[in-house]
Amino acid sequence: MSSEPALMTLTAVAKAIADKKVSSHEVTRAVLHRIAEWQPRLNAYMAVESEQALAAATEADAALAKGNSRGALHGVPLAHKDMYYDAGKVVTCGSLIRRDFVPKTTATALQRLKDAGQVRLGSLQMVEFAYGPTGHNVHYGAVRNPWNTEHITGGSSSGSGSAVAARLTFAALGSDTGGSVRMPAHFCGVTGLKTTVGRVSRAGAMPLSQSLDTVGPLAQTAEDCALLLGLMAGADPEDLTASTQPVPDYLAATKQSLKGLKIGVPTAFYVDDLDPEVARILDETVATLKKEGAEIVKVELPDQRQLSSASQLVLAVEAAAFHKRWMIERPQDYGAQVLMRLQNGLTIPAVTYLEAMRWRGPALAAHNAAVNGVDAVIAPSSPVPAPTIAESDVGNGPGADAVLQRLTRFTRPVNYLGLPSLSIPSGFTKTGLPVGMQLIGRSFEEAVLLRIGAAFQRATDFHARVPKLA
Amino acid sequence: MSSEPALMTLTAVAKAIADKKVSSHEVTRAVLHRIAEWQPRLNAYMAVESEQALAAATEADAALAKGNSRGALHGVPLAHKDMYYDAGKVVTCGSLIRRDFVPKTTATALQRLKDAGQVRLGSLQMVEFAYGPTGHNVHYGAVRNPWNTEHITGGSSSGSGSAVAARLTFAALGSDTGGSVRMPAHFCGVTGLKTTVGRVSRAGAMPLSQSLDTVGPLAQTAEDCALLLGLMAGADPEDLTASTQPVPDYLAATKQSLKGLKIGVPTAFYVDDLDPEVARILDETVATLKKEGAEIVKVELPDQRQLSSASQLVLAVEAAAFHKRWMIERPQDYGAQVLMRLQNGLTIPAVTYLEAMRWRGPALAAHNAAVNGVDAVIAPSSPVPAPTIAESDVGNGPGADAVLQRLTRFTRPVNYLGLPSLSIPSGFTKTGLPVGMQLIGRSFEEAVLLRIGAAFQRATDFHARVPKLA
Repeated sequence: MSSEPALMTLTAVAKAIADKKVSSHEVTRAVLHRIAEWQPRLNAYMAVESEQALAAATEADAALAKGNSRGALHGVPLAHKDMYYDAGKVVTCGSLIRRDFVPKTTATALQRLKDAGQVRLGSLQMVEFAYGPTGHNVHYGAVRNPWNTEHITGGSSSGSGSAVAARLTFAALGSDTGGSVRMPAHFCGVTGLKTTVGRVSRAGAMPLSQSLDTVGPLAQTAEDCALLLGLMAGADPEDLTASTQPVPDYLAATKQSLKGLKIGVPTAFYVDDLDPEVARILDETVATLKKEGAEIVKVELPDQRQLSSASQLVLAVEAAAFHKRWMIERPQDYGAQVLMRLQNGLTIPAVTYLEAMRWRGPALAAHNAAVNGVDAVIAPSSPVPAPTIAESDVGNGPGADAVLQRLTRFTRPVNYLGLPSLSIPSGFTKTGLPVGMQLIGRSFEEAVLLRIGAAFQRATDFHARVPKLA
Repeated sequence: MSSEPALMTLTAVAKAIADKKVSSHEVTRAVLHRIAEWQPRLNAYMAVESEQALAAATEADAALAKGNSRGALHGVPLAHKDMYYDAGKVVTCGSLIRRDFVPKTTATALQRLKDAGQVRLGSLQMVEFAYGPTGHNVHYGAVRNPWNTEHITGGSSSGSGSAVAARLTFAALGSDTGGSVRMPAHFCGVTGLKTTVGRVSRAGAMPLSQSLDTVGPLAQTAEDCALLLGLMAGADPEDLTASTQPVPDYLAATKQSLKGLKIGVPTAFYVDDLDPEVARILDETVATLKKEGAEIVKVELPDQRQLSSASQLVLAVEAAAFHKRWMIERPQDYGAQVLMRLQNGLTIPAVTYLEAMRWRGPALAAHNAAVNGVDAVIAPSSPVPAPTIAESDVGNGPGADAVLQRLTRFTRPVNYLGLPSLSIPSGFTKTGLPVGMQLIGRSFEEAVLLRIGAAFQRATDFHARVPKLA
């Protein structure tokens, strides 16, 4: 455990507070101190609520002194992507259109963290309406990567990735519709879990695509993600698409070794056209997993490009349906790239959309047949490390689509299939940028992914490295 | 009980066979005799399988003689709309495209009737791919109304309506996506139940519109429909959209009086622009229900035209998605009207479709609020009695849409809301054409509708009248 409270993992700090080794107030002050130092450089926070956070921490400490713990996150200060409704608090969704929007309800996922005792630090930046993979935002400015502030964080959970990496929050909710948890986890060097569609309630989370949206955490470690998922997962009367499947003990899963697990390495697509450093880190990661006891096998997956196309088509239609009224009434209030992508969604015929939706079942069946017996498939979260903010500032220009396509090449197929995927920090480039590998699992088998991630993190320290203030 | 076996109700003949008062063979022969007489005039059957039916009847009698009854339909000869897959038997779906199609599976609804002991008589005509409300079919000829063979049967379950009315089967499965059970029930003077979406499995039933399709019976009486629904309803691993809601005792419901039930009469739309005889019969039906003990109240429903538009839009898109490949590969094999309607579906944007789908929840909530406390809403099944085959033979000409719109005006809103509706024979025009009233119920409350229908049928004899061979 680090001696500086703000550098602890979520699991460690929660235990330290519970054990009264450190107070919530002390922890909150330490995190606020880091935020004050880093925020001008990173733009990771949308709003910092210092006084309210310290007051809440004081209350948490008082309650604990009386023996009243609210739960597993008692007194732990956290901030989340600014798209989770928190009744009475502004939730901008990274947009101008919702700059002053105050919801009347609280997102179920967030409510469950509040019920476990979290202290609200404020809210985190994000890509406008979560529709973009880079982390640019024309309204609120790009979020910067703490490993090199000239580089992108990835999106759309840009503030979540940046803030967790810089230790400005112990963990953060993100959302993953086309890669929005895994992109920033990869580019910022943190652990990010894209959950199975339906594993976590989406009630009170800003919708982007009803068929693809998933709620998931970004944190330092797989163990931290396990803690959060265990609190959030499960059925919800407010969201009938939230599954009633039982919620396993994710934390227990993270204690197990890799013995008996089979990890598949794709023979194509996910190993093609990789940046050489990403290719090297993939090999090293596979070697480490093997050394830790996993059996490594080759897997031949079905064509992933079709999955990616279908994923984008479904997303475009469903996002356009949600945004249609605003697109008519307030087009000038959208960023150009987001508006262009939303407008594309208006032109897609319904029959094409239904075909894309109907192919999901057969495509998942084909995937399951291909990975038969494999517990997880390993692949880079993206073929490249973080590009610079300048080179990926493509707006709605002619090259925009190619840039966005390349970044999200490896994340979108997973969204179409609805599967869980855990992105883990797996190495660094020579220039010091982090690289993440994703472990793609079977539906509702997040526990297996967290087990692999935790075992890998016991053997490596990529997740534990902390960026230095330049 | 009629002395002629073919004229009995389904419930009566099933009991007579079970009690060995009449043999299955005798019953089957009697029905085949009527088919031989009527079929040249009506064109109600697609295929009559006399020898196989008689052989199956003989087997059923032999089994019963040994004390082996298969179930509630043991030895009862039945035929169904030619869209329910019966493994190894041709199922044309009323089309040229599937003229020789032999499915490998059996529809769950049909399998449950087979498991209860039904004997297969053959298959019944239908509108091409169930997409049309009149009963015309360019490939196999129009089905004719037994009350006047110059008039339509209504569609798309044209053969089901005609055959049940002429007593060429004791009952028949139909399907109702925009009125396809209720139209022929109304025009042919039989009882037809449109079930709640999800009440009966659609596995192995030809799809028209995944969101709107429902399986339902046409028979002489509400009691007969109750018998069939009780056999068919309930969850099905082959169709995850089939509801797990418990299946009540529908037959028991039909024994109850109307005391304590509240029936709503709409103040608008369903009482506007009615044929004068339909208006008279609506008034008479309401008076009879009141006399039998129901409380009659006025209900102000939300705008039904929007529901109808949304219903048609959803149907057009989903039908086009199912047919797209055939429309490209075999356009010449479709009838002109069906092809025109399918092509319209190709042009609808996905966002418009999603908007129509998303409005279903709010629209149902508004309907439920409007009918609050009312057990069923009564309305004509159509504003007019059966037009002639000649006058409604509109093909894809300029007036086609107006003709089809008028006929299905009162059925489509119910499909959009997914509600159950029972069409009961309620009177005859001066020229001898039957008129049906529909009772629109609450979701999954088919039992209430069957109870009202049965009580009405104890007080009237419209359902018991038999057309004469001209």
